[in-house]
Amino acid sequence: MAMANKVIPVALGRELADLLLRNCKIVDVVTQTIYESNIVIKDGLIAGIGDYTEAKEVIDAPGAYGTPGFINAHLHVESSMAIPENYCVEELAWGVTTLITDPHEIANVAGVKGIKYMLEAGNSMPINYYVQLPSCVPSTPFENAGAVMKTKDLLPCMDWNGVLGLAEMMNVPGVLMQDTEVMQKLNVFRSEKRPIDGHAPCITGKELQAYASQGIMTDHESISWEEAKEKLRAGMAILVREGSATKNLKTILQGVLREHIATSRLGFCTDDKHLADIHKEGTVRAMVLQAEKLGMEPLQALAMATINPARIYGLSHLGEIAPGKQADLVVWDDLTTLNPLRVFYKGIDALAKMTEVRVHHIPGALQNTVHLEDFIADDLVMEYKKGVKYPVINMLPGQIFTKYAEIDGGDVKKQIETGKLCYIAVLERHHATGNIGKGLLSGYGLQNGAAATTVAHDSHNLIVTGTNAEDMAVAAAELQEVGGGYTLVQNKHVLQTLPLDVAGLMSSMDSAALTQKLNSIINMAHEIGVDDGVDPFVSLSFMALPVIPEIKITDMGMFDVRKFEFVK
Amino acid sequence: MAMANKVIPVALGRELADLLLRNCKIVDVVTQTIYESNIVIKDGLIAGIGDYTEAKEVIDAPGAYGTPGFINAHLHVESSMAIPENYCVEELAWGVTTLITDPHEIANVAGVKGIKYMLEAGNSMPINYYVQLPSCVPSTPFENAGAVMKTKDLLPCMDWNGVLGLAEMMNVPGVLMQDTEVMQKLNVFRSEKRPIDGHAPCITGKELQAYASQGIMTDHESISWEEAKEKLRAGMAILVREGSATKNLKTILQGVLREHIATSRLGFCTDDKHLADIHKEGTVRAMVLQAEKLGMEPLQALAMATINPARIYGLSHLGEIAPGKQADLVVWDDLTTLNPLRVFYKGIDALAKMTEVRVHHIPGALQNTVHLEDFIADDLVMEYKKGVKYPVINMLPGQIFTKYAEIDGGDVKKQIETGKLCYIAVLERHHATGNIGKGLLSGYGLQNGAAATTVAHDSHNLIVTGTNAEDMAVAAAELQEVGGGYTLVQNKHVLQTLPLDVAGLMSSMDSAALTQKLNSIINMAHEIGVDDGVDPFVSLSFMALPVIPEIKITDMGMFDVRKFEFVK
Repeated sequence: MAMANKVIPVALGRELADLLLRNCKIVDVVTQTIYESNIVIKDGLIAGIGDYTEAKEVIDAPGAYGTPGFINAHLHVESSMAIPENYCVEELAWGVTTLITDPHEIANVAGVKGIKYMLEAGNSMPINYYVQLPSCVPSTPFENAGAVMKTKDLLPCMDWNGVLGLAEMMNVPGVLMQDTEVMQKLNVFRSEKRPIDGHAPCITGKELQAYASQGIMTDHESISWEEAKEKLRAGMAILVREGSATKNLKTILQGVLREHIATSRLGFCTDDKHLADIHKEGTVRAMVLQAEKLGMEPLQALAMATINPARIYGLSHLGEIAPGKQADLVVWDDLTTLNPLRVFYKGIDALAKMTEVRVHHIPGALQNTVHLEDFIADDLVMEYKKGVKYPVINMLPGQIFTKYAEIDGGDVKKQIETGKLCYIAVLERHHATGNIGKGLLSGYGLQNGAAATTVAHDSHNLIVTGTNAEDMAVAAAELQEVGGGYTLVQNKHVLQTLPLDVAGLMSSMDSAALTQKLNSIINMAHEIGVDDGVDPFVSLSFMALPVIPEIKITDMGMFDVRKFEFVK
Repeated sequence: MAMANKVIPVALGRELADLLLRNCKIVDVVTQTIYESNIVIKDGLIAGIGDYTEAKEVIDAPGAYGTPGFINAHLHVESSMAIPENYCVEELAWGVTTLITDPHEIANVAGVKGIKYMLEAGNSMPINYYVQLPSCVPSTPFENAGAVMKTKDLLPCMDWNGVLGLAEMMNVPGVLMQDTEVMQKLNVFRSEKRPIDGHAPCITGKELQAYASQGIMTDHESISWEEAKEKLRAGMAILVREGSATKNLKTILQGVLREHIATSRLGFCTDDKHLADIHKEGTVRAMVLQAEKLGMEPLQALAMATINPARIYGLSHLGEIAPGKQADLVVWDDLTTLNPLRVFYKGIDALAKMTEVRVHHIPGALQNTVHLEDFIADDLVMEYKKGVKYPVINMLPGQIFTKYAEIDGGDVKKQIETGKLCYIAVLERHHATGNIGKGLLSGYGLQNGAAATTVAHDSHNLIVTGTNAEDMAVAAAELQEVGGGYTLVQNKHVLQTLPLDVAGLMSSMDSAALTQKLNSIINMAHEIGVDDGVDPFVSLSFMALPVIPEIKITDMGMFDVRKFEFVK
């Protein structure tokens, strides 16, 4: 707002604007009305709307609709496997000008350094790239991550440009039991009136009341309308989520429409959406269209895409077309097709500017994050004895939830030979501690060889699964060599590798190359047997997340989530 | 929120609440739905809503409706002539638990000391008493007030408990011309993200765009729906006003309903409402009922009374019934009658607590604010010469707008003798400068005697009008003697005086006594001739406001508002 005074003479029509958007159907998300007028822009701000006829640059937009830039209210850029610059390109192309990101994944690998990199890379783009500071690193005490972030580690980040508040508080038990560190984090952000995001899947009743009482403002985990309604009544804003895997929009908005609920505390978010899916249809834009198809008034859906999240996060300079607001505007062909004709960020044509995208400096520390203690093949597989029962992770198609199974040690070899079972190991990869968790995996389908990934929620250690220790060792060594990524190995030869050179999570390749490489390695994984219903690497990456039942594996061993303890 | 952690065990049902409100129909202003449940309160906060059955104190409310406490979003307590404590009693009695006040009047008399007194007196009551810092003291350069408040004077007040932001920016020309002092005030409050109130009567088009571009957030001056809609589209919140004199609710809300406008940026305010009117029907409560009668959904009107202004002013702890929010609740008999059964402020029964009201200390400096230079009767009336034209303020019934008239000096005496004209004088009363503006007033009706007031918008000098200089001098001397107020004089004898012992604006009498005294002096004024259509003292008090056309008088002389200059 430092430039606000230069806006006055432009608003008064006494000085020329930088840009005039003429004859546009303006979508006013505040009154939820549409009116035809002209918008003048000065120094990145909207100077006025009205009877303006001249400017240094004039764009005629007769018949087109102008809305505020869209806001994707909660997402993890890392999940796209693209670096922030390339991720932003895909979002901007579909009219998103504001991202509220949680760099939770990279924080688990590289702590504050990782957060800083994401923020700076995002801020180099023509987009509002906001960061909520990860609240739960590591996610659980049952694994070793690359960093531990306590309140004292978050404090210096709070004043960085672009940092808003505290990211999703996943440690619900910690809140309810008043864990000292959790309470301290909440107190610090609450006392500064910073936004605090929630994460309360299936939490209801008194537990929800206790959780919400702590000033936790939002939730994006509701999978039913009843759950969402209870959270709204508990004072939480609901960020309706439609990611690649988790799709909650239909059930929630059908409830909203059925019960005629006021929607000012509803926004849209993706949480995790694949780059190829974003490229195809966008994020918030696809959600607005889906809401319209369910019968929601376009203006109501557009408010959810713009002003609602702006208000929820206290971004009073964003989300509406009004004098003094930041000139983030999208010109669309029509509200029922939502093809963006122009996307402006601070009054600059962001789509035109993106032809000049430069990749921000990637710190060396983030390019070399796979640190394994020396190991041999035999370290990755334990000895299975006949007459002893061993736990098995039974992977289910399209689920991150698993079933607990058991096998007699004497049957392991035969089951592996017939392609019904694999070995699985998680190698601590951040500090070369030599920690290796070992176990068995069924339902994956690999027939001969190994698959490995350094994307391994949430601590992002190295997961390798395979039919023999030698191929597994080659796969692990390959990922150490390339600095992380996905790899497939057969008969001690690397079949294909997708290097994820930034923190072992993201690739600095451009989106097209990344998507092509990704499709290629996925196809090859299926060729060597990975079950058709299983996403070869995404499914694998969730086998190390020890908060989702029934059984998982971390660098500390096989973990029975039902009992919340390691299998002895 | 410091006590938040004590809330968790109560929310979880593990510890007893201070209070349980049982079987209440809860009005959720967020989803705009009603549901029956139970509310538990701990340490002044709502701990939870749900299946709670026990507490230290239990109140059963079957059939009754619970809403958040109402918010009166803009008002001047001084206009009620009651001190803050007595004003709050009347508001609380009708379910208002939050006031957003602008101590503009007392600031014109006593500057920072006056603001501090109002804030402390208000904060001694069971109500959220917020202050917006007066932005325009004095209101114009055409008069001498008791104080001049520049940015540097406001800065120390910004961190006082209860101070929100900057009060109505009335200096619209100052904004448009980028007056240095005005820009500085706006910049200071905007850079701290403090709320800034507007005041832009009849400002439209490019001027409105320029004004709104400066982060001026609200307006309460709209008198037509078109004006309100244009301001909403310019990003301003509209505080729909229904005071004793200025009634804008019907026209604005009829427009809202006709055009199906989204209402999240609408709130209710009174600006100036007489104590007796508040006593009879309340403020916001009367507006909600009126909105309902116009056909607005009760839940939509209730959102305007609660959550909307809370959001507009960033009061995230107020305005809704949800865990962690301040326990400001009203239990009503029914939503279409709105008789309050209980009013809770921070979980305490505010109505019960008010039997113990103690008047806060009134600083001596505020009790002795009428400082006149020595004067004689002849100083109050100028010499009128035959053949010379003199300007006359022609007062219009029920208007603060006046007509400019002229009279030949030779006709003055006769017109006064026949009761068609009065002398009028404004005596600077703050710093005994001896400034006296002198002129003529028609349309008031006084037949013989004088009337005087130290309530004189906005600088609150001493206005005296009368049919002879001697009675006028007695009236002025009487108000100096009692420390300000209203008085009536006839034949050199004081007929009746209403002392306004606090700053010459407010009385420390209780509401009933004040109302009775006020009615009595008004009746007597009419008895000695004041026109039936004229409010004897309120109308008089606006004769010194030099921003309302066509002609006014200040301590500096007769002012032609059409030309924006003193009459030569």
